[in-house]
Amino acid sequence: LPSTLTIIGLGLMGGSLALALRSRSTQDAASHDIERSTLNVERITGVSRNPDTLAAARSAGAIDAGTDDLAEGVREADVIVLATPARTILRQLPEVGRHARSGALVLDLGSTKSAICAAMAGLPEGLQPVGGHPMCGKEVAGFAAADADLFRGRTFVLCPLPRTAPDAVDLARALAKAIGARPTLLDPEVHDRAVAAISHLPYAAAVALVNAVEGVDAISETAWLLAASGFRDTSRLAASDVDMMLDVLLTNRGTVLDWLDAYAVQLGRLRQSLADEDELALRAQLAAAQTRRTGLKF
Amino acid sequence: LPSTLTIIGLGLMGGSLALALRSRSTQDAASHDIERSTLNVERITGVSRNPDTLAAARSAGAIDAGTDDLAEGVREADVIVLATPARTILRQLPEVGRHARSGALVLDLGSTKSAICAAMAGLPEGLQPVGGHPMCGKEVAGFAAADADLFRGRTFVLCPLPRTAPDAVDLARALAKAIGARPTLLDPEVHDRAVAAISHLPYAAAVALVNAVEGVDAISETAWLLAASGFRDTSRLAASDVDMMLDVLLTNRGTVLDWLDAYAVQLGRLRQSLADEDELALRAQLAAAQTRRTGLKF
Repeated sequence: LPSTLTIIGLGLMGGSLALALRSRSTQDAASHDIERSTLNVERITGVSRNPDTLAAARSAGAIDAGTDDLAEGVREADVIVLATPARTILRQLPEVGRHARSGALVLDLGSTKSAICAAMAGLPEGLQPVGGHPMCGKEVAGFAAADADLFRGRTFVLCPLPRTAPDAVDLARALAKAIGARPTLLDPEVHDRAVAAISHLPYAAAVALVNAVEGVDAISETAWLLAASGFRDTSRLAASDVDMMLDVLLTNRGTVLDWLDAYAVQLGRLRQSLADEDELALRAQLAAAQTRRTGLKF
Repeated sequence: LPSTLTIIGLGLMGGSLALALRSRSTQDAASHDIERSTLNVERITGVSRNPDTLAAARSAGAIDAGTDDLAEGVREADVIVLATPARTILRQLPEVGRHARSGALVLDLGSTKSAICAAMAGLPEGLQPVGGHPMCGKEVAGFAAADADLFRGRTFVLCPLPRTAPDAVDLARALAKAIGARPTLLDPEVHDRAVAAISHLPYAAAVALVNAVEGVDAISETAWLLAASGFRDTSRLAASDVDMMLDVLLTNRGTVLDWLDAYAVQLGRLRQSLADEDELALRAQLAAAQTRRTGLKF
């Protein structure tokens, strides 16, 4: 089944998707990959407001054609992938709905899924919406950081809507496999609660950590001189792309607030035990965390 | 100046110190290192309550002799290094004071310095106390984890007391250099405030993070399935040795409580901005953290 594919947004995620599909085409031509019949991307169109990004993507061979006109970009596509930040996806979905041709698969790569899947429910009936979230990332953004291997071995969460046709779900699954990822079907609310715990809360914790330590300049030079790997790792996520994370937090607000509250409770318990010099209680909390953390296999 | 050296505690730190000095002796014999005259460790005695540890250290060539009797172990030593957890050091210092011979350098490797330096001030006049903290660590403990290269390239904080003779400070410095570390003189209070910020607070943040996420078992399997590198790094310190960290937190209690409060303020601000959907305020906090974190060179 030859397909034409349009990617809206050629940043880290969209750019990496294009590169990954391209490098797969090359591999397939050589290896006669058995899945070739399922997904055969004949033409990739990129949509970006930035002419430099379009030029870079074209010269890297990531896309065949580029446009800054979303309507034009999606009109002929069999598969439309929204690879912009979450709130931009929410804004772009109605426009995609107005211009996409009937039968097209509409997939997104946004970091949160409940709000986006709810918006997808408003797409015209003929379209086939599937929410998507490849579980990978870097603290860098933009097409310059795009990487054909970004998705390799990663979980690619797919959230079909009740109305989505089984064929369209299969196509989304084939797309995920084509870029080396492991597709996993998940309910949008379950996804959002999970990523809030394992991704958004750690991000918030890292941001607060960097900002808390910033407060005392008198010692900061000494502190950074001593800075060991512990601070480096615990604070790493604070370097994440601000625009993306702002969208993530604001489109997953309720769930993130719940986790922040659970986190504040744990911090408060730790503080109280230390303030009281309650060694038994303190040890119990440290030991519980150590046992759990040591048991996690990443 | 040939020296006999006694190490009390042969865990990760004490064991690594012994191995590092040994591997240096070998290097020196070959390279005629110019610093050899400053510090020439002729004999290393290990003190441990655990006969298996003593046997392992002896068979690894880390120590020449071992004993479970602190008094016997320190009596003949020119240099005494306390490499036990911080609160054990506080308990052992008076006994070291009763049995060490006049003129001996008494150095410790504890993770906090104010309480230990205060206790060192109570040592008999003839002894030469220097508080010490090599800025390195692993989440593993025990002699089995000891590593001759543990201190290589790391900052080794030294806190001499006002009464400590310059020769003794030089000897402590030479010891730090001999194991490949960079000695840095620091006030104990400044040290404790800095490590509370860059090490103890991140540890507490990681413990609370792991314990907060534990709370919701219904989603945990999904969460760990999705777990990306972000959670892994942010929570890494929670796997630290509980006994050591308990000592660290309890001997640096006031300062850690101050930082926990500063951290709670930052988390509260973040929570409030998100709850209010105050995008400007939220962006300012994320951007400040990103700028600072990106600017840190580790």
